[in-house]
Amino acid sequence: MRETNREWYFVERPEGEPTLDSFEFRESDVPEPRHGELLVRVRYLSVDPYMRGRMRDAESYAEPWDVGDTLKGGVVGEVVESESDRYEAGDYVTGNGAWADYAVLDADEAAPVDTSVAGLPAYLGVLGMPGRTAYFGLLEVGEPKPGDTVVVSGAAGAVGSVVGQIAKRNGCRVVGFAGSDEKTDWLTDELGFDAAINYKSTDDYAAALDDAAPGGVDVYFDNVGGPITDAVFTKLNLDARVAVCGQIAHYNDEGAPTGPRKLPMLIAPRAKVQGLLVGDYATRFEEAAERLGSWVDAGELEHRETVVEGLENAPDAFLGLFSGDNIGKQVVKVSEE
Amino acid sequence: MRETNREWYFVERPEGEPTLDSFEFRESDVPEPRHGELLVRVRYLSVDPYMRGRMRDAESYAEPWDVGDTLKGGVVGEVVESESDRYEAGDYVTGNGAWADYAVLDADEAAPVDTSVAGLPAYLGVLGMPGRTAYFGLLEVGEPKPGDTVVVSGAAGAVGSVVGQIAKRNGCRVVGFAGSDEKTDWLTDELGFDAAINYKSTDDYAAALDDAAPGGVDVYFDNVGGPITDAVFTKLNLDARVAVCGQIAHYNDEGAPTGPRKLPMLIAPRAKVQGLLVGDYATRFEEAAERLGSWVDAGELEHRETVVEGLENAPDAFLGLFSGDNIGKQVVKVSEE
Repeated sequence: MRETNREWYFVERPEGEPTLDSFEFRESDVPEPRHGELLVRVRYLSVDPYMRGRMRDAESYAEPWDVGDTLKGGVVGEVVESESDRYEAGDYVTGNGAWADYAVLDADEAAPVDTSVAGLPAYLGVLGMPGRTAYFGLLEVGEPKPGDTVVVSGAAGAVGSVVGQIAKRNGCRVVGFAGSDEKTDWLTDELGFDAAINYKSTDDYAAALDDAAPGGVDVYFDNVGGPITDAVFTKLNLDARVAVCGQIAHYNDEGAPTGPRKLPMLIAPRAKVQGLLVGDYATRFEEAAERLGSWVDAGELEHRETVVEGLENAPDAFLGLFSGDNIGKQVVKVSEE
Repeated sequence: MRETNREWYFVERPEGEPTLDSFEFRESDVPEPRHGELLVRVRYLSVDPYMRGRMRDAESYAEPWDVGDTLKGGVVGEVVESESDRYEAGDYVTGNGAWADYAVLDADEAAPVDTSVAGLPAYLGVLGMPGRTAYFGLLEVGEPKPGDTVVVSGAAGAVGSVVGQIAKRNGCRVVGFAGSDEKTDWLTDELGFDAAINYKSTDDYAAALDDAAPGGVDVYFDNVGGPITDAVFTKLNLDARVAVCGQIAHYNDEGAPTGPRKLPMLIAPRAKVQGLLVGDYATRFEEAAERLGSWVDAGELEHRETVVEGLENAPDAFLGLFSGDNIGKQVVKVSEE
């Protein structure tokens, strides 16, 4: 075990697109776990778009970070010291912890990791919060029926890639928007999407949808917002469902973004649009873990992680989310397994 | 019976705010009902905001009017000739017919009128399509629970005034937006609204809502759109429901109107926004008719009609909807009872 710890601190609220100025890397002592806590050697940490919201000094679904706080999020790692009888040294766990070499996790809120099902990074993606978000968001808000056309924005991301594959399992036609040919190829060639649109290679998303979703859109799972979403709303079928999971196109906006009004578009199709937070389904997380785990185990649910090496590069990995650097789940590798 | 008929024709598609140029008044023969039809002496006809949509050459929920068509909508009147055994001469009925002295109605689609419950114009308002829209839209899409705060735009209109009263019956705090002090007084003094905001006497709807709905908004029944709706969306509580019934602020817009993006506002409260058309509840119209009728009969559901006199003034009555001339249901009196 190292003698010192390294941690990332949040030191300045960004305006608009965040920069490295918001982050500071500091050395500290390795923390000591208290009763019920675990000291974990972090192997991988998660950077997620929703964290941009925590950088604002405004109440929202995720508690805002105070300037001076340690940055925290999903981590996966090895227990090196346990003050709980639920885990012992050597166990692999995932939970919410600091962007650090060593993090203290609440044992009650940590979850065990089974490395025979998938590698550690998958527990921050398909078998972690993003996978659960896809599972509940699509099934409970999107309510896909066989034969439906399901459109996903941010389709090559951690959530979108799982949404599309679950929709395929449910007998839907699936169309994804993503930001490179490498991503769209992954969607159609590996994940079984029926069509994928590289939104950086066309401006006319409505025409692209006419080709890719000629029967209109029954379910839209939105991770992005902006012009992609504007186009999809003009194609909603009768009784369409829209799950608003994320709006990454707007996370860096200062002030209220404007765009085409969508409420007038909802009347004729009687469409339903609903915001979604995975925490609302906490009582059913075990169900999601079992089903997602069994699909991954059976090789029926593909997943991919984009790995940035080194704790020192964690802020860069976070900033890369806003330029779409990642395919699948973006993680940071903190230490060797 | 008169020997000639007078009818209104739709002769020119409007751009933006409609004018009298879209309408032409012509004399014709009194039509003859065919098998299964009724010839009705029209007493009152209905003008409704949704008719603006029918003036566009675009498919929507209501079939577009062709240039040269007779204008049609809800009418109530007396059967003068029946080719159906469901009704006989002298019966009062309501249904879909021409803006004319005499209209031919399909007997199967007509409904009987009980003048002991309410006067004829009420069958175009609280006991007609607007009342049913309020009933199903509030109860099925808004899902009000006792203690909820329900906000209604267009609250002094045919639909909004019924929405607010049903919400009060269900134990809700009710706040209405309307466009004059006379209207807001009616809402609070006669209909039992807890608060009403005259949107023409303030620009700061958000501040007005902070006063009128200090606990935030659980249900929003939207007939209007535009800046009122923009403000309400910033006050949505956890699990809020928004019923999008109408968007009269945008019916005269050419091209897609723009405004603050609302999807980012839905995530934190997990709010649901849904478009609404009353025709979806057709199998339950009898339930609505019975309940609304019994409440009106018992004096528990107030209603009001604004009457424009004379068939020749029907287009003016329609145009007045967009300047908010009506309190309650706007009707046109075509002939004396």
